[in-house]
Amino acid sequence: MASDFWDGDVAELLRVREGFELRSIDPGSTPGTSANKKAGQVELAAAAAELRELQERLYAQSRAGAADRVLVVLQAMDAAGKGGIVNHVFGQLEPHGLELTAFKSPTEEERAHDFLWRVEPRVPGPGVIGLFDRSHYEDVLIQRVRSFAPPEEIERRYGAISEFERRLTDDGVRIVKIMLHVSPEEQAERLSDRLADPSKHWKYNPGDVDERKLWPDYMDAFQTAIDRSSAPHAPWFVVPANSKWYARVAVQRIVIGELERINPQWPAADFDVAAEQARLEATAGLRWP
Amino acid sequence: MASDFWDGDVAELLRVREGFELRSIDPGSTPGTSANKKAGQVELAAAAAELRELQERLYAQSRAGAADRVLVVLQAMDAAGKGGIVNHVFGQLEPHGLELTAFKSPTEEERAHDFLWRVEPRVPGPGVIGLFDRSHYEDVLIQRVRSFAPPEEIERRYGAISEFERRLTDDGVRIVKIMLHVSPEEQAERLSDRLADPSKHWKYNPGDVDERKLWPDYMDAFQTAIDRSSAPHAPWFVVPANSKWYARVAVQRIVIGELERINPQWPAADFDVAAEQARLEATAGLRWP
Repeated sequence: MASDFWDGDVAELLRVREGFELRSIDPGSTPGTSANKKAGQVELAAAAAELRELQERLYAQSRAGAADRVLVVLQAMDAAGKGGIVNHVFGQLEPHGLELTAFKSPTEEERAHDFLWRVEPRVPGPGVIGLFDRSHYEDVLIQRVRSFAPPEEIERRYGAISEFERRLTDDGVRIVKIMLHVSPEEQAERLSDRLADPSKHWKYNPGDVDERKLWPDYMDAFQTAIDRSSAPHAPWFVVPANSKWYARVAVQRIVIGELERINPQWPAADFDVAAEQARLEATAGLRWP
Repeated sequence: MASDFWDGDVAELLRVREGFELRSIDPGSTPGTSANKKAGQVELAAAAAELRELQERLYAQSRAGAADRVLVVLQAMDAAGKGGIVNHVFGQLEPHGLELTAFKSPTEEERAHDFLWRVEPRVPGPGVIGLFDRSHYEDVLIQRVRSFAPPEEIERRYGAISEFERRLTDDGVRIVKIMLHVSPEEQAERLSDRLADPSKHWKYNPGDVDERKLWPDYMDAFQTAIDRSSAPHAPWFVVPANSKWYARVAVQRIVIGELERINPQWPAADFDVAAEQARLEATAGLRWP
């Protein structure tokens, strides 16, 4: 149940629909709320219990055989706030029910296989929330922008992604694809902050500036990826991310909404509760040492 | 740096030394502090920032080539509070730097291999904190108590564990082995609570009562495991766990202590900071759309 914080259904507001245009989205906007940063931080903390109970139910019902699970795909330009989403939203989850995969540049072995080869083993099992920090979409984004793969191969990959995501859905995986959308001005500020702080130098990569220069090409590639892979069973959500606090509560609420649609239930006991109570009581005399 | 909460070095107090006797440990005691539950919960929350900064430094320095990482092994009787430790202590960590493995009853494939076959791939890589919820010690605990393996095989495993843990240490892994120690009376209460609450039935397993009846045999097996596998490079800590709040702050402090000994440092930039600032500024005119 949404709190007073939201004045609209943020998931519906951010879900990509037919005719979507990335260039029409203002990265500085905060759809669904007129609250400020302070209120956003309060909301983020307040909704944690709701998120965790849904996660625990999802995990619990899988122990009794339910197949449901969630796969969240997170894509963005550098410094758009993926790390903060991982820590401040998914960090609220219980570690047992979360499987995070950070996809890096493919290794030599990975490059020798089809692009989905490294992805398949990381699909979450029943009851688990899987989080992809970057994903198979890198193979149609940077690989297109950088011409690491020819157009016909990119085309083939879109077909493969469509089949892959359909198959996962049929198997009980609920797919949620999120693009964190920052402005180039905001990215410059964040990269500059990293350069100004020695404790953040390890997060900075000179290659980030090279990619940055290709901003329009990346936005074209994102637009194409969103056009080509949006589907009712595997929707994209474009989250304005110039305000970190907004991106975090929005992603949190999107995930809560998906879990609510699953509506996971505590599983019934597969044993006789009264009989177990009696067996347990029969051991009441146990002492050690 | 420890807070006022502690009046002694809890890690030193709980670390197993020569002549250790499990039967002399009171599961209801709280070594190192005379605080109460409320203060314990405050301490747990207050120390989270300290834990996280050390974790982030550990992760950061690994990006620059440092090999250090930590492996925490968690063993206990059922309902001793492992789940709470995972959620409330390790749940404070950033997901990127934590790798949790819950070892279940071995599968048919796992049983067809040596007992360390499934463990080796789960050893954390540089910069990561690995957490084993149960571990290779199951293979010398339940397997001994239940006679799933003959004594000479258990003996062989102790030799293998010793070589395994030595090899990991030589490779940069800091090993911390923790036994959560509850009394049988406390376990009975917790199992009874699970039976009384339908939202906890999924955590209950009728087999728990069967194992419970073998309490003295398990305690003998723990004593032997601790005797046979304690080493300066791979110490055991026996944590009194009748008070959940105490077990949590104690484990948190033990992990903080290990990280402090590693003393991880922010890595120096491997690029020219001023030159990067200039390159970034040269892109300041970038606008989109």
